[in-house]
Amino acid sequence: MALLHHSMRDKNGAVVTTAVTNLDIHDIARSSRTYGVKSYFLVNPLAEQQDVVKRIMGHWQVGGGRDYNPDRADAFERVKIVSWFQDTINEIERVEGQRPEVLMTSAQRAFTGLKWKSWQDARREISLNPGKPRLLGFGTGWGMTEELLREADFVLDPILPATPSGYNHLSVRSAVAIALDRLLGEQ
Amino acid sequence: MALLHHSMRDKNGAVVTTAVTNLDIHDIARSSRTYGVKSYFLVNPLAEQQDVVKRIMGHWQVGGGRDYNPDRADAFERVKIVSWFQDTINEIERVEGQRPEVLMTSAQRAFTGLKWKSWQDARREISLNPGKPRLLGFGTGWGMTEELLREADFVLDPILPATPSGYNHLSVRSAVAIALDRLLGEQ
Repeated sequence: MALLHHSMRDKNGAVVTTAVTNLDIHDIARSSRTYGVKSYFLVNPLAEQQDVVKRIMGHWQVGGGRDYNPDRADAFERVKIVSWFQDTINEIERVEGQRPEVLMTSAQRAFTGLKWKSWQDARREISLNPGKPRLLGFGTGWGMTEELLREADFVLDPILPATPSGYNHLSVRSAVAIALDRLLGEQ
Repeated sequence: MALLHHSMRDKNGAVVTTAVTNLDIHDIARSSRTYGVKSYFLVNPLAEQQDVVKRIMGHWQVGGGRDYNPDRADAFERVKIVSWFQDTINEIERVEGQRPEVLMTSAQRAFTGLKWKSWQDARREISLNPGKPRLLGFGTGWGMTEELLREADFVLDPILPATPSGYNHLSVRSAVAIALDRLLGEQ
């Protein structure tokens, strides 16, 4: 899994690098670990942002933090910090011996020409071929740029309730949890 | 929905009132609004904790906060602050004209004699009788006391992945998102 901070849109549509949020590290590491995700990549090219992540994780991985909550250190063992989306592809290819299939997520059906995939189809494919390397990508801020979405082999359908509510603003932490449960949860 | 802060266990098993977390307000309000939950009750008997919640929500509900992110104010309109679990029952009964069915959640199959219910059964019952008032309760800290769990008509199965991972420590924000999607998500 990858949480991407670049290239994102801000609320005005400008292309930005978003800041890492403390609970994006914690909650998504815990969800990833719960659902058996091999690696959780925090992708941010800014050195000072990478330092923030290392400092937060370090607090929980050694000494008093680790003693207080060893489960958190366990979850953080699968977190990797990289600068660019391409780094996640390269790292997975290095470990798995083949390029991963890239599944991006989007809260909206934006842009034409993207290859959409339903959650049920993705779930079925994973269960039929669980050993195939896959990368599940999530954006931050006001969402990925078109260029980044086009890096995907498939884009998963927006997460929606069965009955429309007129509100489509889940936190990325919630979206990740729902996505992992839809793909890998007990049914 | 209700997020309960009393009576919880801490990591040593002592009965405590837990503190409200900033993102428990934000993330769960957004998830609740997304899935059409009528009211999100923050349940905490401590006046200073209630003041924290009011201050955080006030920031987003008026002036600059509201202008910056009107969607957040929208989500917060359904948040209610009460002191005790019984207050949520009374409020729902006042609005709906009947006592709600109480569905509690638990990360573990603790305690004997609880009436467990599967997510599929709960989802089916909701879809067959969507007008029936229901209260979905979540604990914080290291989980609800036995006394509180016994207030439930049913306790929903622990949220688990299809393939056991040996890790069972979702954040409550993630658990709420998954629960709402299991009960009310598009399939």
